[in-house]
Amino acid sequence: MSGKPANGQDKNANAMWGGRFASSPSALMEAINVSIGFDRRLAAQDIRGSVAHADMLAKQGIISEEDRDAIHDGLKRILEEIEGGHFTFSTALEDIHMNVEGRLRDLIGPAAGRLHTARSRNDQVATDVRLWVREAHDRADAQITNLMDTLLTQAAAHAETVMPGFTHLQSAQPVTFGHHLMAYVEMLGRDRSRIRDSRKRLNECPLGAAALAGTSFPIDRHATAEALGFDGPTRNSLDSVSDRDFILEYLSIASISAMHLSRLAEEIVIWMTPQFGFVRLSDQWTTGSSIMPQKKNPDAAELVRAKPGRIIGSLVALLTVMKGLPLTYSKDMQEDKERLFDAADTYELVLAAVSGMIADLKPVSERMAAAAGAGFATATDLADWLVRALEMPFRDAHHVTGRLVAEAEQRGCGLEDLSLDVMQAVEPRITDAVYGVLGVENSVRSRMSFGGTAPDNVRAQIAWWRARL
Amino acid sequence: MSGKPANGQDKNANAMWGGRFASSPSALMEAINVSIGFDRRLAAQDIRGSVAHADMLAKQGIISEEDRDAIHDGLKRILEEIEGGHFTFSTALEDIHMNVEGRLRDLIGPAAGRLHTARSRNDQVATDVRLWVREAHDRADAQITNLMDTLLTQAAAHAETVMPGFTHLQSAQPVTFGHHLMAYVEMLGRDRSRIRDSRKRLNECPLGAAALAGTSFPIDRHATAEALGFDGPTRNSLDSVSDRDFILEYLSIASISAMHLSRLAEEIVIWMTPQFGFVRLSDQWTTGSSIMPQKKNPDAAELVRAKPGRIIGSLVALLTVMKGLPLTYSKDMQEDKERLFDAADTYELVLAAVSGMIADLKPVSERMAAAAGAGFATATDLADWLVRALEMPFRDAHHVTGRLVAEAEQRGCGLEDLSLDVMQAVEPRITDAVYGVLGVENSVRSRMSFGGTAPDNVRAQIAWWRARL
Amino acid sequence: MSGKPANGQDKNANAMWGGRFASSPSALMEAINVSIGFDRRLAAQDIRGSVAHADMLAKQGIISEEDRDAIHDGLKRILEEIEGGHFTFSTALEDIHMNVEGRLRDLIGPAAGRLHTARSRNDQVATDVRLWVREAHDRADAQITNLMDTLLTQAAAHAETVMPGFTHLQSAQPVTFGHHLMAYVEMLGRDRSRIRDSRKRLNECPLGAAALAGTSFPIDRHATAEALGFDGPTRNSLDSVSDRDFILEYLSIASISAMHLSRLAEEIVIWMTPQFGFVRLSDQWTTGSSIMPQKKNPDAAELVRAKPGRIIGSLVALLTVMKGLPLTYSKDMQEDKERLFDAADTYELVLAAVSGMIADLKPVSERMAAAAGAGFATATDLADWLVRALEMPFRDAHHVTGRLVAEAEQRGCGLEDLSLDVMQAVEPRITDAVYGVLGVENSVRSRMSFGGTAPDNVRAQIAWWRARL
Amino acid sequence: MSGKPANGQDKNANAMWGGRFASSPSALMEAINVSIGFDRRLAAQDIRGSVAHADMLAKQGIISEEDRDAIHDGLKRILEEIEGGHFTFSTALEDIHMNVEGRLRDLIGPAAGRLHTARSRNDQVATDVRLWVREAHDRADAQITNLMDTLLTQAAAHAETVMPGFTHLQSAQPVTFGHHLMAYVEMLGRDRSRIRDSRKRLNECPLGAAALAGTSFPIDRHATAEALGFDGPTRNSLDSVSDRDFILEYLSIASISAMHLSRLAEEIVIWMTPQFGFVRLSDQWTTGSSIMPQKKNPDAAELVRAKPGRIIGSLVALLTVMKGLPLTYSKDMQEDKERLFDAADTYELVLAAVSGMIADLKPVSERMAAAAGAGFATATDLADWLVRALEMPFRDAHHVTGRLVAEAEQRGCGLEDLSLDVMQAVEPRITDAVYGVLGVENSVRSRMSFGGTAPDNVRAQIAWWRARL
Repeated sequence: MSGKPANGQDKNANAMWGGRFASSPSALMEAINVSIGFDRRLAAQDIRGSVAHADMLAKQGIISEEDRDAIHDGLKRILEEIEGGHFTFSTALEDIHMNVEGRLRDLIGPAAGRLHTARSRNDQVATDVRLWVREAHDRADAQITNLMDTLLTQAAAHAETVMPGFTHLQSAQPVTFGHHLMAYVEMLGRDRSRIRDSRKRLNECPLGAAALAGTSFPIDRHATAEALGFDGPTRNSLDSVSDRDFILEYLSIASISAMHLSRLAEEIVIWMTPQFGFVRLSDQWTTGSSIMPQKKNPDAAELVRAKPGRIIGSLVALLTVMKGLPLTYSKDMQEDKERLFDAADTYELVLAAVSGMIADLKPVSERMAAAAGAGFATATDLADWLVRALEMPFRDAHHVTGRLVAEAEQRGCGLEDLSLDVMQAVEPRITDAVYGVLGVENSVRSRMSFGGTAPDNVRAQIAWWRARL
Repeated sequence: MSGKPANGQDKNANAMWGGRFASSPSALMEAINVSIGFDRRLAAQDIRGSVAHADMLAKQGIISEEDRDAIHDGLKRILEEIEGGHFTFSTALEDIHMNVEGRLRDLIGPAAGRLHTARSRNDQVATDVRLWVREAHDRADAQITNLMDTLLTQAAAHAETVMPGFTHLQSAQPVTFGHHLMAYVEMLGRDRSRIRDSRKRLNECPLGAAALAGTSFPIDRHATAEALGFDGPTRNSLDSVSDRDFILEYLSIASISAMHLSRLAEEIVIWMTPQFGFVRLSDQWTTGSSIMPQKKNPDAAELVRAKPGRIIGSLVALLTVMKGLPLTYSKDMQEDKERLFDAADTYELVLAAVSGMIADLKPVSERMAAAAGAGFATATDLADWLVRALEMPFRDAHHVTGRLVAEAEQRGCGLEDLSLDVMQAVEPRITDAVYGVLGVENSVRSRMSFGGTAPDNVRAQIAWWRARL
Repeated sequence: MSGKPANGQDKNANAMWGGRFASSPSALMEAINVSIGFDRRLAAQDIRGSVAHADMLAKQGIISEEDRDAIHDGLKRILEEIEGGHFTFSTALEDIHMNVEGRLRDLIGPAAGRLHTARSRNDQVATDVRLWVREAHDRADAQITNLMDTLLTQAAAHAETVMPGFTHLQSAQPVTFGHHLMAYVEMLGRDRSRIRDSRKRLNECPLGAAALAGTSFPIDRHATAEALGFDGPTRNSLDSVSDRDFILEYLSIASISAMHLSRLAEEIVIWMTPQFGFVRLSDQWTTGSSIMPQKKNPDAAELVRAKPGRIIGSLVALLTVMKGLPLTYSKDMQEDKERLFDAADTYELVLAAVSGMIADLKPVSERMAAAAGAGFATATDLADWLVRALEMPFRDAHHVTGRLVAEAEQRGCGLEDLSLDVMQAVEPRITDAVYGVLGVENSVRSRMSFGGTAPDNVRAQIAWWRARL
Repeated sequence: MSGKPANGQDKNANAMWGGRFASSPSALMEAINVSIGFDRRLAAQDIRGSVAHADMLAKQGIISEEDRDAIHDGLKRILEEIEGGHFTFSTALEDIHMNVEGRLRDLIGPAAGRLHTARSRNDQVATDVRLWVREAHDRADAQITNLMDTLLTQAAAHAETVMPGFTHLQSAQPVTFGHHLMAYVEMLGRDRSRIRDSRKRLNECPLGAAALAGTSFPIDRHATAEALGFDGPTRNSLDSVSDRDFILEYLSIASISAMHLSRLAEEIVIWMTPQFGFVRLSDQWTTGSSIMPQKKNPDAAELVRAKPGRIIGSLVALLTVMKGLPLTYSKDMQEDKERLFDAADTYELVLAAVSGMIADLKPVSERMAAAAGAGFATATDLADWLVRALEMPFRDAHHVTGRLVAEAEQRGCGLEDLSLDVMQAVEPRITDAVYGVLGVENSVRSRMSFGGTAPDNVRAQIAWWRARL
């Protein structure tokens, strides 16, 4: 695109337009106006909308059945040409709507013009984009569901695999790897729920709003809405051609969801360091060095971590474009499509990459377990036991725990390795029941509160979600 | 805050910390850590959560009934102190949770410590914020509903008041002012629908997730959830303390909704110019000049137009903070509250301001009507009539219309002022039925398609929405 | 790209990867890793960097002169192939660096491998992008300068053309159209100044930082820096491969500058309404309607108004990507290029479009003048005169002005149409010198303070800037 | 602020305004218009500007010397009242300008009104904010310089302390800790350079632009500009009151700089994990647990990591507000101050916190060194040596290195532990000179290229920067 790079010395050479626009105003205006470079992705939706519109026009007696049949045949052929890669897109015809209509005229003659009765490009593009976004919702729904399924499978395999639970990236209390993965199932469950709410909300058909005011032709908007799988027609013609909420809501949902996945990606990057060594990914998801065999660059995880920036950027872009825009259609709104397509491509790529990585991920359970047990990770379990079993006030329980930790630290052992004698020297009422909560496995098993990390809980969570996928 | 301004000359004076942090690391760490300056807004929620928690602990036999009663009495008194403005917040106690707990200890002694059994600040703050955000949803719902109601009232009064319908801020086709206002009812209807979906989604209770792993105390999370009006407890303890989706979703919804209102605000600013002169606002919503009586600065509308920037900024801030954050709680998440409070205050201010302005707005119908009729605004009606009545192909209809517009332009009159003779000289098949679609009122009345601008349609839209408020 | 749209009904068909990634992990990893689709735009920079590197290697005796000559010949031919469109880019070779190197090996054999001595892809891509961004700075500088020049020409032609000066989009005081345009020259002057500061700052060469730590080969980084037009080499190898500030600074500058142009674009959109009618644009910059001759959609202005959203979005995207990224290179940073290219293309398009529109813009001076004179726009001039000439306190001067405005309002005339008698009846000390500040032309001429709107001032501003272009 | 939380049940109670605005339109309009709650931070700047303005008015004979003296005395007293905390700010007087002016009238009577001659609130606030932002630049400059100084001190102490150099958070090649810290000195050097460029650019005085058009009073704008430390007056009155670039540029610089610091903060968080254990921070910069002695939560680092989100959010907010805003002043621009103050407070907090942490940071050199040596980190040094010493082609050198790594892996030793015999069995031409590049210290010392990690280079970098602080 950028053609030859401007040379520092003769930077005033193309004084008039600079760089890419050296030629003429008309080249510029084309660069501004033409959208066929990107809106060709709406071809299938555009044709589908036109088929439904022609059908309705014929049923309402606005066009003849012959015209309808000619239009249908022509559109079918155009779709085949586009899908087969034989269609010649023309920038002179600006956008996908005019490219399709132009070709239809070539194929079927003047009847092509009747397709545009009681319709304008404003409601046509609103319908096309809405169909596209609805499909993007469906693809996201399927991918999220698939990723949840993959996580459930890993979580089930590791419902008992202990690892440190972190706060501030410092070990806090032991949890299980399955429980950790299930946190992401919850996030994705909310993402899917948002996608479904949004799909319901967008599922109204703007076709028939015409330029902005509706039409005096006796059209049947309920019929076209139904034919296109919508729940019904939109209720206000001005809003119908001015509304891009369904894109903004999709971008918001994708931003939040991609943020979730970036958290998991950051964890994978950290877990893959030699210092953590908590997980392994196969060469399919990493790149290496021919001479440094230990190097496993988690490229896929890094890109998943980065991509929310891009989707958030698209959300900001479109919110900024729409802010303060008077009704109804303004050319500003043409900015919607490229951001949408880029965000959807990005989000779908990220979902697929995380599914792949999770399926591939192998926890190194011995390293996880060792880390989970380090640093008196069950000190809070001990304190809780003192409160619960001995009805000690919290403050006293913490004091006793602190003294026992100091004993263990001095001996270079874990809390669970202290003998009952040593413990009773600090607090005589301690019984050997205390060992039931010390040690990583005991700690984890004891956290039976609803939503807690005990393996049986984790399995119950998995079953609950399995029933909902 | 900033103290005395640094002087350009001696800018190295406070070399060590600069400006506000001249004193010491501890002052700095306090500035970083202390949140009581803003999280005091969670006081009511914090106390409500503690009441429910103490109740449950007693029912489960984890604390005594005496302790519970003492805790309840203490908390009730603290709430009264805070609401009455008699509570002394302490930065030494960092946050609202410790301020309340500290005061409770003053009031009831060691029993205060038992309130913290089977709970940590991580699940406590997650619960508090969730309660606050739920209330913010309810306030927004009520305000949106009120604004929709105000719009319906104005729309009903102006279902027949014609004005230009704009595309590209150029008159395109006549519409009614009522129809135009109803476009905003549609937008707000979607906003309200989003708020309701989001409220349902957030209505799960994280209390009892404890620090991150659940607890070994025999707590009843379903009971606390129910007591606090939640649909049930959250399902995964790690997610419970790591999740801020409910804030992000609120910020997304508020961003989109504030964007809608900024579009209306921009229209009001433009309509208030002497050049348009489409509407009047009373002095309550404008500021003026003591010596320029005609000047009506639409300050309120301008601020409504500006405010989405602020809300979008908060959305970006929190998405950026959460992106790539490993589980579970990290201090980064403390950034959530100030952005939330600011965004909610801003959004509620904007909703209230628009309600006030819409109730106050007086359309200047004669200027609207004149503008609606200018510039052959019904040329498309004529072309449509030629297609419909004479079954003329679109291309021919446009040709004929162009010639008739040229005739009218030459005569300096409107299309509806051309005699039938003149029309038939251009196209002999034209009959006097054509006048039924010419002229602004006729044009508007003819757009009877579902969602179109015909006054009867507008009234039907109003009735449909009235039934749903 | 998107392939065939997913059908709503069978949305679980591609359960595993969904949509575009139905095939395999390897297809996915390719989609994640491969950058040749966009980094091919760095071809010229990449080759230029390699030529300089080979030169230096030979001068330092690290490679032979024969190898250097072979490399030079090969690279020259590759550049010709790329510029001529004969080069076959290969996704298997991932990126532009490996594509060029691979082709070089085809052309010159093993000597190609020696080019990579004392260099890695990390410093190579950092150098390539920096060269590209430097050229983008130069293109922007030339385009900004050209636009300033165009504005100066229009401003000179309209140094005396009066129009209303607006606050709150309400007429406040008369100004000249030339003065108004000069406000944008000031903004663009700052933009250009930012571009120049940024260019100076980025003009250091990262080549030779190698992977991240420098190299043990006896390279001469000053020589390559000089050969590539840099002021010198970067000073820290870790920073050299981790730094993307030069892109972020470019995006910041482009965001602010595009914001400036969006303000002008908004004004053009408003001025083009029939209600304002302040300016005309030819058909080159507008689109119309075949049957509504008065309709002039300012598409180009609308897109200029919209585009900052896109550039701001790219800025947000890259800031978000870089935030919290540990040193040195991480794959996240591959996100930089697409946002950069898109933002530069957008910014250059916007600059060119505004240049074109400004050159084409015709003010409708009679409408501007009429609006400038309406609404007692010179009331503040009168009040100032009372303060200045009669040494009246402000408060009293406002009172007298208010009464005179009321007189004029009652008579339906302007302030300048009030007779001296009428004026003296309100304030006896008024002399006929007062008429020297009433009336739009007088008002404008009187504002002689530095930077004020008096035509002579405007001409002085123009001359000042002419001397600096 | 939010008053009592709305109760879910009676959410329609405050139907009219909802929540905080239950009372009346006037309460709302006040909430929208009043800025004294935040612009009181401009008090010192406002008074400083007024002093200079009064001086100039007297010198130009526009006001009397007596008036000037009274004004000066009054303003001096007001500043004392404000700094002493004795000033009563009034919301009825809307903003800082009217609060000061109102108090001045109380103190000195009608002369107070003459201060407003040839000035309006539009140029007054533009001047105040510019002065404030200039001081924010100076504070940032001093803080950045201080932080660079702190980094230089640590870097000097650790110019030879080896650690792994990371790409993809995987060890790649050994570097020194001093070299790593110096990368941040480079980033901060660019930040400081941006601050200085921006300060120069903003240092023009808008005072005297009046409402928007300049004034007919014979003012001397060069005099007020000089008195306030500006390089001169702004050149265009319309731009003077419409321009907020100096805030946007500050926000951009702070965003980029805070991003740099978030990278360091992320590294500290990771280095502080028990798994890495690369650094220690004292209790001043961490929080812990009373019962888990090993837990060191890096709260300060986490907040530094988070804060760029907030500053970026403010940048987005103000860019969005300014986008598409017609000239000159619109109320939208009142949104500038709160975002500015919040961003400056945040940025200064972050700079101070990082300075404190860096001064406090203790590297654990034995853990760094062990990690630097792990994983054949000097394999690239070996390959480079083969190329350099034996003139082996890269491809062959990689092959030989791969075989030697395999030998070492099999033996469970490092490359430097392989005997010469073993090496020569793989490649006979290897001499014992090879050991000079193996081993971490040798590797680091060998990277003598300009900017490379060799300790002598690092010391040279430190000296270069010391000379520039």
